[in-house]
Amino acid sequence: MAITGAHVARAPRIRLGMVGGGRDAFIGAVHRIAARLDDQYELVAGCFSADAEKSLASAADLGVGRAYASFAEMAAREARLKDGIEAVAIVTPNHLHAPVAMQFLKRGIHVICDKPLTHSLAEAKKLARAAEASGVVFALTHNYTGYPMVRQAKAMVAAGDLGDIRLVQVEYPQDWLSEPLEASGQKQADWRTDPARSGAGGSTGDIGTHAYNLARFVTGLTLEELSADLQAFVPGRRVDDNAHVMLRFAGGARGMLWCSQVAAGCENGLRLRVFGTKAGIEWAQEDPNYLWITPLGGQRSRMTRGGGGAGPDAARMTRIPPGHPEGYLEGFANIYAEAARAILARRAGTSPDPAVTFPGLAEGVEGVAFVDACVRSSARNAAWVKLNL
Amino acid sequence: MAITGAHVARAPRIRLGMVGGGRDAFIGAVHRIAARLDDQYELVAGCFSADAEKSLASAADLGVGRAYASFAEMAAREARLKDGIEAVAIVTPNHLHAPVAMQFLKRGIHVICDKPLTHSLAEAKKLARAAEASGVVFALTHNYTGYPMVRQAKAMVAAGDLGDIRLVQVEYPQDWLSEPLEASGQKQADWRTDPARSGAGGSTGDIGTHAYNLARFVTGLTLEELSADLQAFVPGRRVDDNAHVMLRFAGGARGMLWCSQVAAGCENGLRLRVFGTKAGIEWAQEDPNYLWITPLGGQRSRMTRGGGGAGPDAARMTRIPPGHPEGYLEGFANIYAEAARAILARRAGTSPDPAVTFPGLAEGVEGVAFVDACVRSSARNAAWVKLNL
Amino acid sequence: MAITGAHVARAPRIRLGMVGGGRDAFIGAVHRIAARLDDQYELVAGCFSADAEKSLASAADLGVGRAYASFAEMAAREARLKDGIEAVAIVTPNHLHAPVAMQFLKRGIHVICDKPLTHSLAEAKKLARAAEASGVVFALTHNYTGYPMVRQAKAMVAAGDLGDIRLVQVEYPQDWLSEPLEASGQKQADWRTDPARSGAGGSTGDIGTHAYNLARFVTGLTLEELSADLQAFVPGRRVDDNAHVMLRFAGGARGMLWCSQVAAGCENGLRLRVFGTKAGIEWAQEDPNYLWITPLGGQRSRMTRGGGGAGPDAARMTRIPPGHPEGYLEGFANIYAEAARAILARRAGTSPDPAVTFPGLAEGVEGVAFVDACVRSSARNAAWVKLNL
Amino acid sequence: MAITGAHVARAPRIRLGMVGGGRDAFIGAVHRIAARLDDQYELVAGCFSADAEKSLASAADLGVGRAYASFAEMAAREARLKDGIEAVAIVTPNHLHAPVAMQFLKRGIHVICDKPLTHSLAEAKKLARAAEASGVVFALTHNYTGYPMVRQAKAMVAAGDLGDIRLVQVEYPQDWLSEPLEASGQKQADWRTDPARSGAGGSTGDIGTHAYNLARFVTGLTLEELSADLQAFVPGRRVDDNAHVMLRFAGGARGMLWCSQVAAGCENGLRLRVFGTKAGIEWAQEDPNYLWITPLGGQRSRMTRGGGGAGPDAARMTRIPPGHPEGYLEGFANIYAEAARAILARRAGTSPDPAVTFPGLAEGVEGVAFVDACVRSSARNAAWVKLNL
Repeated sequence: MAITGAHVARAPRIRLGMVGGGRDAFIGAVHRIAARLDDQYELVAGCFSADAEKSLASAADLGVGRAYASFAEMAAREARLKDGIEAVAIVTPNHLHAPVAMQFLKRGIHVICDKPLTHSLAEAKKLARAAEASGVVFALTHNYTGYPMVRQAKAMVAAGDLGDIRLVQVEYPQDWLSEPLEASGQKQADWRTDPARSGAGGSTGDIGTHAYNLARFVTGLTLEELSADLQAFVPGRRVDDNAHVMLRFAGGARGMLWCSQVAAGCENGLRLRVFGTKAGIEWAQEDPNYLWITPLGGQRSRMTRGGGGAGPDAARMTRIPPGHPEGYLEGFANIYAEAARAILARRAGTSPDPAVTFPGLAEGVEGVAFVDACVRSSARNAAWVKLNL
Repeated sequence: MAITGAHVARAPRIRLGMVGGGRDAFIGAVHRIAARLDDQYELVAGCFSADAEKSLASAADLGVGRAYASFAEMAAREARLKDGIEAVAIVTPNHLHAPVAMQFLKRGIHVICDKPLTHSLAEAKKLARAAEASGVVFALTHNYTGYPMVRQAKAMVAAGDLGDIRLVQVEYPQDWLSEPLEASGQKQADWRTDPARSGAGGSTGDIGTHAYNLARFVTGLTLEELSADLQAFVPGRRVDDNAHVMLRFAGGARGMLWCSQVAAGCENGLRLRVFGTKAGIEWAQEDPNYLWITPLGGQRSRMTRGGGGAGPDAARMTRIPPGHPEGYLEGFANIYAEAARAILARRAGTSPDPAVTFPGLAEGVEGVAFVDACVRSSARNAAWVKLNL
Repeated sequence: MAITGAHVARAPRIRLGMVGGGRDAFIGAVHRIAARLDDQYELVAGCFSADAEKSLASAADLGVGRAYASFAEMAAREARLKDGIEAVAIVTPNHLHAPVAMQFLKRGIHVICDKPLTHSLAEAKKLARAAEASGVVFALTHNYTGYPMVRQAKAMVAAGDLGDIRLVQVEYPQDWLSEPLEASGQKQADWRTDPARSGAGGSTGDIGTHAYNLARFVTGLTLEELSADLQAFVPGRRVDDNAHVMLRFAGGARGMLWCSQVAAGCENGLRLRVFGTKAGIEWAQEDPNYLWITPLGGQRSRMTRGGGGAGPDAARMTRIPPGHPEGYLEGFANIYAEAARAILARRAGTSPDPAVTFPGLAEGVEGVAFVDACVRSSARNAAWVKLNL
Repeated sequence: MAITGAHVARAPRIRLGMVGGGRDAFIGAVHRIAARLDDQYELVAGCFSADAEKSLASAADLGVGRAYASFAEMAAREARLKDGIEAVAIVTPNHLHAPVAMQFLKRGIHVICDKPLTHSLAEAKKLARAAEASGVVFALTHNYTGYPMVRQAKAMVAAGDLGDIRLVQVEYPQDWLSEPLEASGQKQADWRTDPARSGAGGSTGDIGTHAYNLARFVTGLTLEELSADLQAFVPGRRVDDNAHVMLRFAGGARGMLWCSQVAAGCENGLRLRVFGTKAGIEWAQEDPNYLWITPLGGQRSRMTRGGGGAGPDAARMTRIPPGHPEGYLEGFANIYAEAARAILARRAGTSPDPAVTFPGLAEGVEGVAFVDACVRSSARNAAWVKLNL
């Protein structure tokens, strides 16, 4: 029953700021818990809303000392403070990711940004170039890559346990947009179905990018082209709420991706199956502590987080022994922990442990390119298109 | 704990013949058990092989009185016997379905034929015309439609319990052809991977037709067009062993179909999910006694065969109380039982109970048209094509 | 995809009679299907009811030639017929098992009897002595021992795969007697809750015997003593409808047995878990095609009927490839098939294959002794008692 | 997708100290994460070890300002500090719970103590009296009661959704002590198998108390008597590593409790099933986001944390929407959050929200009495005994 994870050694906590994530927000609270879980960050400043009163109220709620109503002002001022923030978490709607990030990274402040990277491909590329030039740590919270058994899966594919990959089946069905929730003014639905704030993709941007990223992360395969059939089932909806996508990978592997926000009865049904010449694996987000593996001709077996067979890549991401489930927040916190390792290494002027892995700019640009390709393909009756990378 | 199914009342058993199904065969034995289970048939004649010695040996094994080495001769002679067969079960490789069936139906002998109907679309249509003209009962053993919970699912869709159907996700992964088994001479692999005997489709014909039929049976939706990406992953294989297909149905529903014979770790993973505006359902062949239903906003619930909520359409197909599982053979036998009801009604000069339902010529032609469309689409880089019905 | 089971070679079918199993019965129909499935029996005579008209009507329903209203007369007459029955299936309420069996076995007619063997221990012992003296084949339909994965489990325990057995947890919850169904006159509930016909045990006799037999069959452990706490939750019920039992086995293994007919939401939840020094296994009747195995320190893996790792003991009991589920009827039929092997060997004057295994008199006496011990223990406030064997 | 939980409003964080939980410990780290998750506590002092150097090293690891080597000294000094700790978390081996707690509570410092309350019943009662007299908040981390679906289950039982409870089946199998791990010096095994530090019960104290507490928490039933058969399967082990217990509750409900640390293949298999006259429910700790409910005659349905049907008692304990799993740490943190609500109310001189619920002294004494009763019963050959409350 020993704790198997090797956690970041104590150092002064990273001073963190946040943009977005005020009182009605969902993902901001998740980021805050994730930042707190391993005690590597201290939230000291925030621009929780463009409305000063609201931003202040949120700061008071949270016990955060410095509140701003302008993210540009926040960036400028924090950069000048002796104990100003070292990193910023960006949890705004998609269209603000780039302008916010630009303000901070140009001042050398590290960025932890919610996905997708931006709401347009041009902006994603521009941001990526700027961020690379700046040299900051840039983490994109494709949080599902933080689950220990996803790390285990990636390690097994890389080790050749599956043989040559033939098939990648990934899906992410939800049902929360089965009805025109945006018409009710519900905040999450409102901006996510507005192309101006969400981007050209609806379900593709919100969850399709997660599914795509997960498949890419685990398999390491490069996409060659895709054919996408997008739908907006709910009358009046301005973005896709369902997508069927066929995938062709370099080297001959093929796949399918399905994402939906109108699949009645599905909560967050992200599920990945990968089949190779030697074995197949399956992982489902709603039961994330299990990885199912079947060698060709063998028995389907269930590897647990920390249980028999699980290796160091899972162990690095694990806080408690097997049989005591970890969940979404722990997975999310793992991204924050990985980013902390990178930031602390930067602070110390060293290189982080080579095992440190988290999604960043490349994954961000590719995610937006995936949405862009889906939209282009669907507009041409599901023609095969390449990612415009 | 009363038996809920209303079974066919006693009448002289239907005299049954069989073509194919000799000593090395797989599906012949299944048909024989299915015919026997409800005691409605008596196997009295067979052409188990074109090799007379083998046919005789099989007949001896089975305790069948009349053995033939020529199906044409069998048809001719049985038709002249006073107590000749009333129905024939055709369990040969696909390319023989049509020639065999033609011999029997033209003599007024009812046909129970394994799927797919034929190995080419032209032949399927020709056979269908001839069979319709003959007036015989023609049952196609798309056996999965015999599972009680599949009947239940169909009834629920028809009753509007799911609302308007939006999405149909169906898949049938296997792994038994992950390696070049045909090179070893294994009989089942040998003919199934030979286009001359199997038809132009490999996995599409062998199991894709089942998946397609199941989706059509349950939803009642009409396919408008499909886009298929077929692969033959195993070097040297002459037919597809994997297929990714996007589906567009009349009325706007969309779907995906995946079938594979190279998905390592999958046995007979036929699974159907249907999502409507009101609810979603899921059924998996490997656990066939359960139907999962989730009303939008409600709880996922598991209906069992004969348990709470299951209706008369499931009950008609059920022999034992819930909690005692029925399986593949019982589902297969249900097709035989339904065909028996039709044949006995024909014998009696009456109409069968309107509830009697089994796949027949229309489903058979459509199945072959589905394979044909997949092959055509894939040859044109997954272009959208219509079924050539 | 070859059929892996080696089935009984063709020989003239065994002429079978049946006592009980008329129109309202449940288990009679199950026995008939089980007898028919592998085509080794032919039902030619029956005393389906003590009411002549009813017995005749059932015979007509079933297409059975010889109907009787008296089982004694049936035994006497069939014994004199040149083509009289060779075996009889006894499917009456429990109190009739012994008198019926005595009539047939004393005339050398083999017996296939439903469980429990009798409704009292004295009678069970007397019957066993008589049956042994007669030399007939006597099979008791503890049908769950016919499931392939139960055979697999037994083989694995015997091979030492689990190491030394420490724990045996077995349970069989149902809910069909949660309310006073017997008050409604429902036939199954009526006799099962009447001590005169069912015996002193209610749930213990009806399903506890199955659970106990399963545990004994798989582990081979000998019971040393038990402590039972029986309840009749439903007001007015004359027999137990729930039992909690602690088990002590020779050699130090311990266990628990729970059976219930008032566990709301349970259908036929028979489940066995066995834990040894090296591994643990789990099998559940409602999903019988799977056996779960976890080596100490390893991964929980799911062995399927006919899939990777399953051995010859499972294969002998299997008709179709893995992934196509078999169920209750097939398991039941396996007991009939094993009995047929024994009967045919007797007919041929040979010994049956040593692999042939089915529950018989010893298991029958022990089952009744188990019920007797539970009742005795519970009457003494769950004192530890031994089986009175 | 709004966050459904209503979390504690911002107030100065509770200054927390910790006793135990140094570098090799397991549960200390869990308590720290739990305290941190909702940002209600600040860990400012600790006696992480009786070895000063080790305690300091742990404090440095953790960034904790004040380190002690004597818990008595810590209590004395913190009580005098203006910003001394308001609450202490006790995470030592069992035998130290009471002496440590006494030091703090007599100075009015609130206590959050790991379970079981103490290692002997006499001490438990003495501690309870002292704590009650002191008026401090005393929380016992029977953390499984913090899972949202456990709260939901409790609420459903209380609301009468299950009708009158008849059966309570609870189990907690593990396998980590299948071999003599204590002989290797592994710290967790060492003290847990030493009666002087763990108490008279082994598995009963370590996990049996959890199982018992869970059953009591959810059902609210009062135990009348129990019959326990304890074993120490591993040679040389000084405490039980397996326990079979039969339970009789006031009002007529019956139950079984099984806990084991030698059940090969089990990680933390805590599972509770409760059956009433109207419905049955099931909850399993390893998949904690689901509560399974079956109304008598209805369908088994899966309620998810925050999904359809889940009520306010689950929502209070929930941070994120359904479909994104929460786990062990979140459940543990819920106990800390409930304790924080009580402590903050005390600080404010108000009463906490009546919904606030967490295990405390009564549950602590009863848990130790449960272990005591198991040991007494087993010593008398599983005689029925009452809790010595």
